Amino acid sequence: MLIVLKPNVSKEEIDHIVDKIRSLKLEPHVSTGVQRTIITVIGDEDIIREQPLEAIAGVESVKTILKPFKLVSSETQPDRSVIRVNGIEIGGKNIVIIAGPCSVEGEREVVEHAQMVKESGGHIFRAGAFKPRTSPYSFQGFGVQGLKFLAKAKAETGLPIVTEVMDPRDVGVVAEHVDILQIGTRNMQNFNLLKEVGRIDKPVLLKRGMSATVNEFLMSAEYILSQGNRKVVLCPRGIRTFEDITRNTLDAGVVPVIKGLSHLPVLCDPSHAMGLKDYVPAAAYAFIAAGADGVMVEAHPRPEDAHSDGQQTIDAKTLVAMIDRIRKIARALDRDLP
Amino acid sequence: MLIVLKPNVSKEEIDHIVDKIRSLKLEPHVSTGVQRTIITVIGDEDIIREQPLEAIAGVESVKTILKPFKLVSSETQPDRSVIRVNGIEIGGKNIVIIAGPCSVEGEREVVEHAQMVKESGGHIFRAGAFKPRTSPYSFQGFGVQGLKFLAKAKAETGLPIVTEVMDPRDVGVVAEHVDILQIGTRNMQNFNLLKEVGRIDKPVLLKRGMSATVNEFLMSAEYILSQGNRKVVLCPRGIRTFEDITRNTLDAGVVPVIKGLSHLPVLCDPSHAMGLKDYVPAAAYAFIAAGADGVMVEAHPRPEDAHSDGQQTIDAKTLVAMIDRIRKIARALDRDLP
Amino acid sequence: MLIVLKPNVSKEEIDHIVDKIRSLKLEPHVSTGVQRTIITVIGDEDIIREQPLEAIAGVESVKTILKPFKLVSSETQPDRSVIRVNGIEIGGKNIVIIAGPCSVEGEREVVEHAQMVKESGGHIFRAGAFKPRTSPYSFQGFGVQGLKFLAKAKAETGLPIVTEVMDPRDVGVVAEHVDILQIGTRNMQNFNLLKEVGRIDKPVLLKRGMSATVNEFLMSAEYILSQGNRKVVLCPRGIRTFEDITRNTLDAGVVPVIKGLSHLPVLCDPSHAMGLKDYVPAAAYAFIAAGADGVMVEAHPRPEDAHSDGQQTIDAKTLVAMIDRIRKIARALDRDLP
Amino acid sequence: MLIVLKPNVSKEEIDHIVDKIRSLKLEPHVSTGVQRTIITVIGDEDIIREQPLEAIAGVESVKTILKPFKLVSSETQPDRSVIRVNGIEIGGKNIVIIAGPCSVEGEREVVEHAQMVKESGGHIFRAGAFKPRTSPYSFQGFGVQGLKFLAKAKAETGLPIVTEVMDPRDVGVVAEHVDILQIGTRNMQNFNLLKEVGRIDKPVLLKRGMSATVNEFLMSAEYILSQGNRKVVLCPRGIRTFEDITRNTLDAGVVPVIKGLSHLPVLCDPSHAMGLKDYVPAAAYAFIAAGADGVMVEAHPRPEDAHSDGQQTIDAKTLVAMIDRIRKIARALDRDLP
Repeated sequence: MLIVLKPNVSKEEIDHIVDKIRSLKLEPHVSTGVQRTIITVIGDEDIIREQPLEAIAGVESVKTILKPFKLVSSETQPDRSVIRVNGIEIGGKNIVIIAGPCSVEGEREVVEHAQMVKESGGHIFRAGAFKPRTSPYSFQGFGVQGLKFLAKAKAETGLPIVTEVMDPRDVGVVAEHVDILQIGTRNMQNFNLLKEVGRIDKPVLLKRGMSATVNEFLMSAEYILSQGNRKVVLCPRGIRTFEDITRNTLDAGVVPVIKGLSHLPVLCDPSHAMGLKDYVPAAAYAFIAAGADGVMVEAHPRPEDAHSDGQQTIDAKTLVAMIDRIRKIARALDRDLP
Repeated sequence: MLIVLKPNVSKEEIDHIVDKIRSLKLEPHVSTGVQRTIITVIGDEDIIREQPLEAIAGVESVKTILKPFKLVSSETQPDRSVIRVNGIEIGGKNIVIIAGPCSVEGEREVVEHAQMVKESGGHIFRAGAFKPRTSPYSFQGFGVQGLKFLAKAKAETGLPIVTEVMDPRDVGVVAEHVDILQIGTRNMQNFNLLKEVGRIDKPVLLKRGMSATVNEFLMSAEYILSQGNRKVVLCPRGIRTFEDITRNTLDAGVVPVIKGLSHLPVLCDPSHAMGLKDYVPAAAYAFIAAGADGVMVEAHPRPEDAHSDGQQTIDAKTLVAMIDRIRKIARALDRDLP
Repeated sequence: MLIVLKPNVSKEEIDHIVDKIRSLKLEPHVSTGVQRTIITVIGDEDIIREQPLEAIAGVESVKTILKPFKLVSSETQPDRSVIRVNGIEIGGKNIVIIAGPCSVEGEREVVEHAQMVKESGGHIFRAGAFKPRTSPYSFQGFGVQGLKFLAKAKAETGLPIVTEVMDPRDVGVVAEHVDILQIGTRNMQNFNLLKEVGRIDKPVLLKRGMSATVNEFLMSAEYILSQGNRKVVLCPRGIRTFEDITRNTLDAGVVPVIKGLSHLPVLCDPSHAMGLKDYVPAAAYAFIAAGADGVMVEAHPRPEDAHSDGQQTIDAKTLVAMIDRIRKIARALDRDLP
Repeated sequence: MLIVLKPNVSKEEIDHIVDKIRSLKLEPHVSTGVQRTIITVIGDEDIIREQPLEAIAGVESVKTILKPFKLVSSETQPDRSVIRVNGIEIGGKNIVIIAGPCSVEGEREVVEHAQMVKESGGHIFRAGAFKPRTSPYSFQGFGVQGLKFLAKAKAETGLPIVTEVMDPRDVGVVAEHVDILQIGTRNMQNFNLLKEVGRIDKPVLLKRGMSATVNEFLMSAEYILSQGNRKVVLCPRGIRTFEDITRNTLDAGVVPVIKGLSHLPVLCDPSHAMGLKDYVPAAAYAFIAAGADGVMVEAHPRPEDAHSDGQQTIDAKTLVAMIDRIRKIARALDRDLP
């Protein structure tokens, strides 16, 4: 850690800062340059990270050297994590395709939708039982009943299931019914929810908050791992920027950045990144080419009848063509599809 | 609502869209221009808002006319809401000052801090018992014990108390101990939590999400009002932008925008907006001059010893001077302090 | 165009707006709904676009229907533009690779650098003679002398040359020496410069402003085409967002959006999008997979000795490997390299 | 400067970096911690700032300590600059009001508009002769003829004049006719234009780029001062963010930040920050309360007839009321109006 002092810092102020650092059992080194005095602190940066050093008179700025995350870091674990769900590997050589409608729309419907995904070549089925909706007047999902429908869809198709959990009180029941628990973008920093899914033994698909930094995203994953659950899949899904011609901005460049910093698998969501179905395949190709371990897309036999997010939902024909193209791109990258 | 069709839309596609709108008991009017055909829909926009019209072949874009919120809207209630807490009016003629440390730091400490706020001229005391921290390794707050300390601080000083609630399971116990429940920026779209605080009879201070739009912010307030609790105070606290020279960007211009759209009181947080104590007073003046009904600031007798957020925490002397200056500005705006 | 009126609009205000529209020889249609009166205007939207309708009493908002650009629009010209430079086609089936150092570094150096690009498989050579630098104290480029060096590099290698022009006074001399004129990100809305390059008969590579919307980007291209020069290549290069872990945010999703709106070729810059050399290849693959017609990368035999932008500059070995991989991805997309 | 090395850096890589620093006549200090080796460089940071250190094998990141600007810095000149124009002081105790229409609209009109500003209590008149317009098909201004009209307006009213210059070729003629030259937001990094206005002896009003950082903004001012012209007024005008309910985001918090970093006067533009006339007065109050030395607003006798920007233009009555209120706020801040 580096503490930059103000140009007019006094001797007493420097002494006070040095004492403060020593009281934490760390060793400060004071260097006096022409324009600034700086204090370098060697030792465990975590101890001092929590101190409000910038509140001390004479301090201009503080520059940390290490990233704040540990368990998710590729420094702690150099080998990439591979997470297995029903024989499917996420984060291995093969690209994984998750697909399905935004919402569970009924028992018969969810089975039909899962069959569509299976026949199209998808590997995991997605659909929301609990729906976080911007408006209290919008369809809020089937809840626990929807979880039962999802279990039925798995029984019929054999596809593992991922669905979102929004409330710490629902973690148990969701974990009973599905294979992967999704934490949605609006809950990426719902720390109590993160702690709850950190205590179960099922994979968690953690979506990035719509304006979360990469560091915050990895710290949210750290919350889950810190409770014992190491099966976390990171899911970039576009970020919010000044550009509103698409629903979000598809920041494909985040994939190599995250894969450099962390050993966790990275699986991306091109549907929410773009928000319009015509752009979803190109967005999926971009994420895969950037290094993603798979994509999760919204798909529905009749998007215009979808209960939610229809405008960004692709149909079966597009899904089949997209998976076919992803296979070709995967091979160009020395990867493949299962 | 206005539906803009693609330049090459077919007769069949237009008929399909018209049928869809009629099936919702709404009346479409088709206008054919030189470059585009547009369909205007008269009637209840809520019915059609949920339909994924952009998923239909031939549709280029959909433009809504009305704002999606109702109960919070100044169209529904033209008179401004005034919320009373222990004899203090939020949203009336007078400016309200909330102050206190980021965290509850102990029983003795919290009483000392509340006394400092009272003596400095503040009207409401703030301190966090449950702390949402980016890192799982940071101090997470005193929890329920902290609530008891806060109740003690109120008993000693008479100041009403505001504190954050992060978990729907804690709403009951927090409401028992304090006067105002705060929803933090990371939970602005934690919809289950919003519903819970919507069912109690205590004021809620709703902080804006760090990159929530004004519409999303008001829809989150709508969630609370839709459950019956109409005592919501809106709290802008700066937004996340490309500029990182301050912790957030103090968007003072949002105050007149929100006050135009909604009847709810607006009370701002300059501490989180700026992130550095030296800038807090100027930021508070800007929010007040823009029309805010008050400010909430982090204050502590010794900011460098604060358990969290010390770098953006002002001391007693600064708090006194700031309140004095706010009084002068309030009078320049034909307002005052209690 | 749709004019939404305020809920309390008066009869006189409506009449005034209707008169204003009729005075422009356009036809207004007034529809009175339960919550709002709206006025639909049929006819040439350009006439009314310039009017400050929102300044008129009673108007709440104005919603335009058509995009403001014409010559660059894929509606005006459905066939994709292909721009030819020295036998290379930009915007055709083949992917084009532009590479070279950030700056011209001397006569001998620029020839060496162009040879490296040629031997690595690149098609066009880039290097800056005029350098827009954030600091007045940084190296500002070789200027006109640098143009002569670039002409030498072309004579030696046969590679066509692209270089930036920053000043309307330099357009003539730059056009004399090189094959493609680049407009840099900071000059995307330097309208006088756009007009000057619009009057020459050489291709223009127009970089997107770092926070320009897609509409603004296409309007800047429209400036050039409106002066007669139709040979414009659009160059996305990442945008500025809240995320600063990379120099910019690589928004690969903009490629299908622009290719839907415009017939102009799209060639992307992954070097500036990421800002760090290790991320450049993955970023290039993402842009290509998203549909780009090529990439422009900064490359140098010894990046650590580059006069500028060394941190985001790849070396010859990386360039060769990257071009090889791009060839495979291109073929997976039914495209190829020349 | 601090150079953080990668965890697996080799002895040879460290030696190479140390040699590189020594070759620049600077002194490196290597500190080896448990998790990272860091190199602190003492000496003139400018020498090393230009080096692409991050391109060197083994370097993880580079952290600079000093701000890159000098002449504009409050460290170089602790006393605040006061710029005098026709007896008006910008940056002194008094708040300055600049007002006028977006565009010069004709000879008679500009005189009428300047009289309106004078009678309303404004101190400086603004109107654009050269207009940077997003569309090549929009009104582009009266050009040099407009400058003559502006000179007439000054002769009639005695008000000093500010107008925008867009092209380095026009700096001479603009400087002949008006008192203050404005650099528009789109030209904040038009470095050749900055150099030209740096060589004249008239004040320059430098608007902040719509997504320029504070550091970039101050570096653009540094360009002007580095050429000899020290009369620069900094003009924040809102920034571009994800929020589009207003034209830009009024970031009032930037005022105390800039006033801390630089001695130059700060005069803000609430009209462009908000983009809608109803919000302009509150935005002006916020900027003043945050510490601005004045505001520049768009005003016109009949905003709905303005040639451009009518929707954000206030009328005479609003201008008078706004100036009256600003006087009261100024006095609450121990300042005043001339």
